Amino acid sequence: MSARNAFYAQSGGVTAVINASACGVIETARQHPDKIANVYAGRNGIIGALTEDLIDTSRESAQAIAALRHTPSGGFGSCRYKLKSLEQNKREYERLIEVFKAHDIGYFFYNGGGDSADTCYKISQLSETMGYPVQAIHVPKTVDNDLPITDNCPGFGSVAKYIAVSTLEASFDVRSMAKTSTKLFVIEVMGRHAGWIAAAGGLVEDYDIPVVILFPEVEFDQEKFLASVKEKVDKYDFCTVVVSEGTHWPDGRFLAEQGTRDSFGHAQLGGAAPVVANMVKDALGHKFHWAVADYLQRAARHLASKSDVEQAYAVGKAGVEFAIAGENAIMPAIVRTSNNPYAWKVGKAPLSEVANVEKMMPMEFITEDGFGITAACREYLIPLIQGEDYPPYKNGMPDYVTLENVAVPRKLSTDFELK
Amino acid sequence: MSARNAFYAQSGGVTAVINASACGVIETARQHPDKIANVYAGRNGIIGALTEDLIDTSRESAQAIAALRHTPSGGFGSCRYKLKSLEQNKREYERLIEVFKAHDIGYFFYNGGGDSADTCYKISQLSETMGYPVQAIHVPKTVDNDLPITDNCPGFGSVAKYIAVSTLEASFDVRSMAKTSTKLFVIEVMGRHAGWIAAAGGLVEDYDIPVVILFPEVEFDQEKFLASVKEKVDKYDFCTVVVSEGTHWPDGRFLAEQGTRDSFGHAQLGGAAPVVANMVKDALGHKFHWAVADYLQRAARHLASKSDVEQAYAVGKAGVEFAIAGENAIMPAIVRTSNNPYAWKVGKAPLSEVANVEKMMPMEFITEDGFGITAACREYLIPLIQGEDYPPYKNGMPDYVTLENVAVPRKLSTDFELK
Repeated sequence: MSARNAFYAQSGGVTAVINASACGVIETARQHPDKIANVYAGRNGIIGALTEDLIDTSRESAQAIAALRHTPSGGFGSCRYKLKSLEQNKREYERLIEVFKAHDIGYFFYNGGGDSADTCYKISQLSETMGYPVQAIHVPKTVDNDLPITDNCPGFGSVAKYIAVSTLEASFDVRSMAKTSTKLFVIEVMGRHAGWIAAAGGLVEDYDIPVVILFPEVEFDQEKFLASVKEKVDKYDFCTVVVSEGTHWPDGRFLAEQGTRDSFGHAQLGGAAPVVANMVKDALGHKFHWAVADYLQRAARHLASKSDVEQAYAVGKAGVEFAIAGENAIMPAIVRTSNNPYAWKVGKAPLSEVANVEKMMPMEFITEDGFGITAACREYLIPLIQGEDYPPYKNGMPDYVTLENVAVPRKLSTDFELK
Repeated sequence: MSARNAFYAQSGGVTAVINASACGVIETARQHPDKIANVYAGRNGIIGALTEDLIDTSRESAQAIAALRHTPSGGFGSCRYKLKSLEQNKREYERLIEVFKAHDIGYFFYNGGGDSADTCYKISQLSETMGYPVQAIHVPKTVDNDLPITDNCPGFGSVAKYIAVSTLEASFDVRSMAKTSTKLFVIEVMGRHAGWIAAAGGLVEDYDIPVVILFPEVEFDQEKFLASVKEKVDKYDFCTVVVSEGTHWPDGRFLAEQGTRDSFGHAQLGGAAPVVANMVKDALGHKFHWAVADYLQRAARHLASKSDVEQAYAVGKAGVEFAIAGENAIMPAIVRTSNNPYAWKVGKAPLSEVANVEKMMPMEFITEDGFGITAACREYLIPLIQGEDYPPYKNGMPDYVTLENVAVPRKLSTDFELK
């Protein structure tokens, strides 16, 4: 069989290491010109496929592709665009096949989280349902760490390291100021419905920092929360609170809903930190400071976890190798083989079991009072933040790459209207 | 003259490198046992002197003191406590002299910003006004970079590097998402009345990132601001806004005042980012994300500027050397001798000219439209963020030191009531 082209796209919220996965895909594909002629990237994710806006990655130098490994964000652009089911919107799938045919796409690599795994799974069924031969591999990525089967998700280790380090640093700061000034520091973190990122903030307890964590998995109980903060401040004279953006009241309302929703229909969260800080101020009177890390946390390639960078690259590489070996409808998954010393390998997860499943924090990772992490959780988290993998710097700034992103000449005369 | 003891205290908001100054003071003092017998640190700053709560730094190992160089926050505790004038509150000065006498303090090193320079200046006059021989040296520190005479303030370079890098990373993120999702990213930074930190965000323009900066030095003009954002989004499809916490309306109201004030009477700021983000959303409809870096920025030792760490150490060291040489009422100051390659030395500033003077951004550093930085500003800033100075890591976390902070046995039987 002669070589066919591959399509690669980044999907959903980007991370500090999704480009390391892109690097793994492209560098590995380049080693197999007999199987993969060229990797075309979707400009802004799957939208690039639908609108026939493909990027010719062969126009990028080996050096530029290598630099993706240390560059945060999505080098080809990402999007929030979820394909409906085949029954609901057949024209999208027909269009994809039209574009794939025109550019002889035989491999589909989709780099994303849960929603994207679902899309990827649908694409993987195209051979059967619509008679177009394509192998679809999902390359896992999400800071939320909520994909099933894989031990952890590339992207999470780096944000966990960022939150653990930043919480430690800010807590040292508050500890210095507590005598006459700030006694409460609140940091709001991402994670949507899963408390994994918030849990990482709990690692500061090993450094004698009092911390109260608010998980989305635990219904918010104001009275218990204030009692917990009071107990910490009484003992330490200060307290740090890590609040997940997904923390909610028993009735389901988020602590701070901005009232807007993203294109997947998810509520856009943010602003829980000032709510919590003011709540403590009103009840206990402490002076506070609060931070909302937002994109800073998921883009912080300058503080990436080495384990995470290596795994992000590895799942990209494995995705290509699986495809070459004839696999379809799978996701390379991280398999932990040892905790201490930490060891892992890449396994294989069937997409049918990945799509649309959200992995929450197991309750045995959360302390009984609902505000801390257990020893089992520490054991899980610590390997994931191991090692530093600094980007090169130039003039005091990280030397991140911006690709040329040259378009592949269009072959179709038809346009496609995005829904 | 036989050796006398030195008093060292940290004052005001702490930084990523104030402990590097402490390290410079203590290591240098240890090299001159003939002049300085011991360095006593104030627990929680000047409060430690007033309450006779002194820390015996000789009880800390050379290794622990060396580790201060890579540890953020105030290792001995800081405070916000401003001494009134001698006329207004003579009992504080009498108490200081009482404590100094009891512990044979001949040298006073005060590590802080503008308010502390004022306090230090008052102490330096004690020999004359109250007949107690003490040499007072102010060791400069402030992330706000608003001290006069010195070219820059230790603490600023690191926060500038943090904000420049974080703004770059988050802007790359937004650029990836702009097609279908976030088009506006707002980051709120510290700096109080001075726009130096906000200016550092402007360095991302060199990486083709569209950025609008809101300086406290420029009265906020909503119409012009929205027009500027619109112009950037029209051209780039996304825009980053860096808003200083001190940005205010023409009538002086801050964009977001929390209504609380710190013990110096300064308004406690925070929350301008969501105000600005919602303003753009209402006018232009763009989906946004916002971050408030707060303490994360000033505590981020993991991303310290090497120039800054070296200067912080150097001003501590020079302070001790000046004192030994008989100086009083001065502040070691950074003198820039060359821009490219960057070169600097430590000079000497009289405290009478430092105290209570706030250095704003010069207007020639701000572009004519009020929303950007000029080439002159870039030339000023870039040297200050040069070089990386990573802390050592252990188990994936920075190996920051927490000192023993053993108390010096008290010699006085009287207590002191803090006002």
